[in-house]
Amino acid sequence: MGQGRRARWGRFAVHVLRGQAQVDFVPSAVTGAVFTVGLFVAGWHYGLYGLLGTAVGTATAQLLGVARGRVAAGLEGFNACLVAVGCAVGLGPGHLSTALLAAAGCAVVTVVAAATATVLRTWGLPPLTLPFCLTASAMTLAAPGFSKVWHHGEGPAALARAAEGPAALGLRDAAHGFFANIAQVFLVPQWYVGLIFLAGIFAADRLAGAMACAGSAVGILTAWALGAPAERIADGSMGYNAVLVAMALCGALLAADRWSLGFAVVGAAAATVLGPALSALFAPAGGRAFTWPFVLTTLVFLASVPALPRLRRTQEAVEARDATGAALPG
Amino acid sequence: MGQGRRARWGRFAVHVLRGQAQVDFVPSAVTGAVFTVGLFVAGWHYGLYGLLGTAVGTATAQLLGVARGRVAAGLEGFNACLVAVGCAVGLGPGHLSTALLAAAGCAVVTVVAAATATVLRTWGLPPLTLPFCLTASAMTLAAPGFSKVWHHGEGPAALARAAEGPAALGLRDAAHGFFANIAQVFLVPQWYVGLIFLAGIFAADRLAGAMACAGSAVGILTAWALGAPAERIADGSMGYNAVLVAMALCGALLAADRWSLGFAVVGAAAATVLGPALSALFAPAGGRAFTWPFVLTTLVFLASVPALPRLRRTQEAVEARDATGAALPG
Amino acid sequence: MGQGRRARWGRFAVHVLRGQAQVDFVPSAVTGAVFTVGLFVAGWHYGLYGLLGTAVGTATAQLLGVARGRVAAGLEGFNACLVAVGCAVGLGPGHLSTALLAAAGCAVVTVVAAATATVLRTWGLPPLTLPFCLTASAMTLAAPGFSKVWHHGEGPAALARAAEGPAALGLRDAAHGFFANIAQVFLVPQWYVGLIFLAGIFAADRLAGAMACAGSAVGILTAWALGAPAERIADGSMGYNAVLVAMALCGALLAADRWSLGFAVVGAAAATVLGPALSALFAPAGGRAFTWPFVLTTLVFLASVPALPRLRRTQEAVEARDATGAALPG
Repeated sequence: MGQGRRARWGRFAVHVLRGQAQVDFVPSAVTGAVFTVGLFVAGWHYGLYGLLGTAVGTATAQLLGVARGRVAAGLEGFNACLVAVGCAVGLGPGHLSTALLAAAGCAVVTVVAAATATVLRTWGLPPLTLPFCLTASAMTLAAPGFSKVWHHGEGPAALARAAEGPAALGLRDAAHGFFANIAQVFLVPQWYVGLIFLAGIFAADRLAGAMACAGSAVGILTAWALGAPAERIADGSMGYNAVLVAMALCGALLAADRWSLGFAVVGAAAATVLGPALSALFAPAGGRAFTWPFVLTTLVFLASVPALPRLRRTQEAVEARDATGAALPG
Repeated sequence: MGQGRRARWGRFAVHVLRGQAQVDFVPSAVTGAVFTVGLFVAGWHYGLYGLLGTAVGTATAQLLGVARGRVAAGLEGFNACLVAVGCAVGLGPGHLSTALLAAAGCAVVTVVAAATATVLRTWGLPPLTLPFCLTASAMTLAAPGFSKVWHHGEGPAALARAAEGPAALGLRDAAHGFFANIAQVFLVPQWYVGLIFLAGIFAADRLAGAMACAGSAVGILTAWALGAPAERIADGSMGYNAVLVAMALCGALLAADRWSLGFAVVGAAAATVLGPALSALFAPAGGRAFTWPFVLTTLVFLASVPALPRLRRTQEAVEARDATGAALPG
Repeated sequence: MGQGRRARWGRFAVHVLRGQAQVDFVPSAVTGAVFTVGLFVAGWHYGLYGLLGTAVGTATAQLLGVARGRVAAGLEGFNACLVAVGCAVGLGPGHLSTALLAAAGCAVVTVVAAATATVLRTWGLPPLTLPFCLTASAMTLAAPGFSKVWHHGEGPAALARAAEGPAALGLRDAAHGFFANIAQVFLVPQWYVGLIFLAGIFAADRLAGAMACAGSAVGILTAWALGAPAERIADGSMGYNAVLVAMALCGALLAADRWSLGFAVVGAAAATVLGPALSALFAPAGGRAFTWPFVLTTLVFLASVPALPRLRRTQEAVEARDATGAALPG
C-alpha cells in the first residue's frame, strides 16, 4: 500500500470517527473513538453497525460530491451511524437482511441530509438528526409489511400509552437514568455506556459535557415532577432528548450566556414533555419517537431566535450559514 | 404606587385585553373586555385561565425582547390565552398541576410563536393560531403519559369516528349551533357565550362581525348538507373553524370584495370538511383537532393568492410583511 | 356556434387532454387521449370522472386567473383528474353525493395547487401530485364522519398491516404487476389498462416510456426482495410510486445521464419501501397512501440536488423556475 493511499485511508478514518462524535455536536476524532468503544461495550454488533454505518454514509457523500468541508467535519456520518444502529436495534442485528437494509439506509440518508440542509438553510437552521429521524421512521413503519425483513412475527407491538405503575423514583433509578439518558442518544440503554460517552464528550469540550449533564438532570427532574413511570426514567428513555437539546441550545448553536442557559433549560423540559406526545402519535402505526422530540424542539427554539433579541447564534453557526448560503444557486 | 408604574400597568392591561380580542383578529381592548366577560360567563375558571394565560404570554414576550409593536397589538397574547383555556378544558381546571402546566405552556407558546412567524414570513404568511395548535396538541398527546398531570384515570377516550345517530337538524339546533360556533373558538360550547363574543366583535368591527355570522352559517349548512350528526352541529364543534376562516379570508387578511367573499365561503366549507378529517387523524393517538382545520385551510388559501390575480392581500398585511421582512437578518 | 367560440372550446379540450397526460409528466394531448381511453376501459365512470374532473380543475384555474402558460400545459388539470377518480374509487361512483363532492374537490384542489406551488418555489421544487394527495387525504379521512357521503356503512376498514400470506411471486404475477403498476398511477388495478397507458406514454416520449418500465421493474424487484405479499405486487399497489419516481428523476426533472439513472433507481426503490410505511401511518385513521410516497421521495431527492454536484436539473425545470420566480411579489 503506497503512502498516498495510506494517507487517504487515514483521513477517511478520521472523518468517520468525527462522524461518530457529531452525534453529540463534537467534531473530534478522539471523542468519536471513545464513542465507538462505548458502542462496542453496549454490544459488539452495535459497535460494528455504528462504525460501518458512518463509513457508508461518509463514502456515499464523497461519491456524490458533497462539499469536502462537510465530509471532513464528520457532518455526513452521524445520521448514517444512527440509522445503522437503529436498524440493528429495531430489526435484530443478526439477520443478513438487517445488514443489507442498514447499508441501503445509510446511503439514502445522505440524500435526505442534503435535502433537509437545502430546505432548512432558508432560515439558517441546521438539519440536526432530522435525516436520521425521517429515514429510521420510514424504515420502522414499513418493516412489518415485508416478510423477509420483519422477524418478530406478531406485528408491531403498540407502545404503552397511559401512565403505568407508580412514579416513586429511587436515588439509584435517578443515578442510572442520569447516565442512561446519555447512552440513549445512541439508542442503547446501559448507564455505564452513557458514562463512557460522557467521558468522550468531556475529553473534547468541557462546556458540551457540562450541558449534557445539565440536560440529563433537567430531563429527570421534569419527568419525575410530572409523574412519568420510574422504570422509563431509569432506562433513559425519558431524558435523552433533553441531553441533546441542552447541548444544542447552549454552546453548540447559541452563544453560551445566562439567557441561552435559561433557554436550554426550558427547551430540555419542553422536549421531555414532547417525548411521550410523539410516542403516542406514532404508537398506533407501530412507529417510534427516535430523536424527533429533540429535533422539533431545537428547530422551534432556534427558529425563534431572530425575533428574540436576548439570544444570539454562535459565530460559527452564523458564518457557516453565510458561507453555504453564498454557494447556493439562488 | 407611582404614576409611572400605574401607567405601565395600565398599558400592560390594555395589551392583555387586546390579546384576548386577537383570538378573533380584532385588535381592540373593548372587544377583549367583552370576550373576557364571555369567558367568565362560560365558567369562572375559564375566565381566569384565559386572562392569566394572556398575561403570562404577553409578559414572556416582553421579557424576551419581542418587538413592542407586536406586544402592544396583542399579537403575543392570544395563543397563550387559548393554551391556558385548552389546559383547563382538557386537564380539568381544579388541579394545581393544570395551573402550573398552563403557565409553562403560555411561556413556551411565545417561543413557538416567534419560530412560526420566522418560518412563515418567507411567504408573507401569518402564524394565526398555529403556535396554540402545536403547543396544545403536544400537551394533550403527552398528558396521559404523566400520572401527576392526568386525572381522568382511563387513558385518552378515542373520539367517535363513524357518523353516529340521525342527521335530522331542528331549527333550534341550528340556531344554537350558529352562536355555539362562535363560542367554540374559545373552546367553550355555550351558545349564549357565543352571543356575547359576537357582540364584542360587532362593537369593534362590523365587517368582522358580519363575516363571523357568514362563516357560522356556511359551517352549519355544509355540515348539514353532508350529513354531520345534529348534536355536533348544535354544540358548535362542526362550525368554529368556518367562523375563523371566513373572518380571515374576507376583511382581516384579504381585501374585502366579492372575490374574497367567494373565497371565504369556499374556505369556510373546506374547513368544515377538514374538521372531521383531522379529528380522525388525531383520534387514534388521543389528540384533538383544536383550530388546526382553520389554520391549515387559511394558510393554504392565503398561500395561493400570489398565483391568483383575482385576489389581493389587505394593505395592512402587505405592509406588515414588508416591515418585518426588512428587519430580518437575511 | 361561431368560429371564435368553437376555437375556444377546441383549445379548452386540448388543455384538458394535456391535463390528463400530465399525470405522467407528459404535456401531450395525444397521450391524454390515450389515457382517457384507458380510464374508460377500466370503467366508464372512472373515464367520466377523470375527464370531467380535469375540465373542472382547468376551468377553475382559468376563472381565478392563473397564468395562461400553466393552464395551456395541462398543469392545472392533472391533480383535479386524480381527485375526481379518487372520489369515484373511494366513495363509490354511483352516488350523486360523490359527483358533487368530486366537483367541489376539483375546484378546491386548484387553490391547493397554487398554494403548494408558492411554497415549494422557494427551493425550485414542483408540487407534483402533492395537491391531489392533500385534498384526497382530507376527503378520505373526513368521509366516514358524514352520513350523506359515506355509503359503506361499517366505518373505515383498517388496511392490513403485517405481511400476510406467502411472498412466492409467480412469473404471471410479476408480469401483471409490471403493467398494473402503471395503471395504479390513476388508481385503477387492471394490468391491460396499464398497457394502454404505457402505449400513450411511448407515443409522446420514448425516454419517459423507458423510465416508466424501469421504475416498474425496480418496484417489483424491491418488493419481491423484501418479501411483500405476492398479491399486492400483482395488483400494482406496491409499485406505482416507483414508476412515477423513476420518470421524475431521470428525464422529466433531472437531466438524463448515468448519474440521474442511478438516482432514479435508488429513488424508485426507496419509494417502494416508503409505500407500506405511509399506509401504516394512515391506516389507524382510515386514510390511504395515494401518491404520497412518490411525492415525498421525489421532493427529497430533488431538494438534495443543489448539494450534490453530480446531478443537474433539466434546463426546462431551471428556466421554468426562474421565469415564475421573477414574476412573484418578493
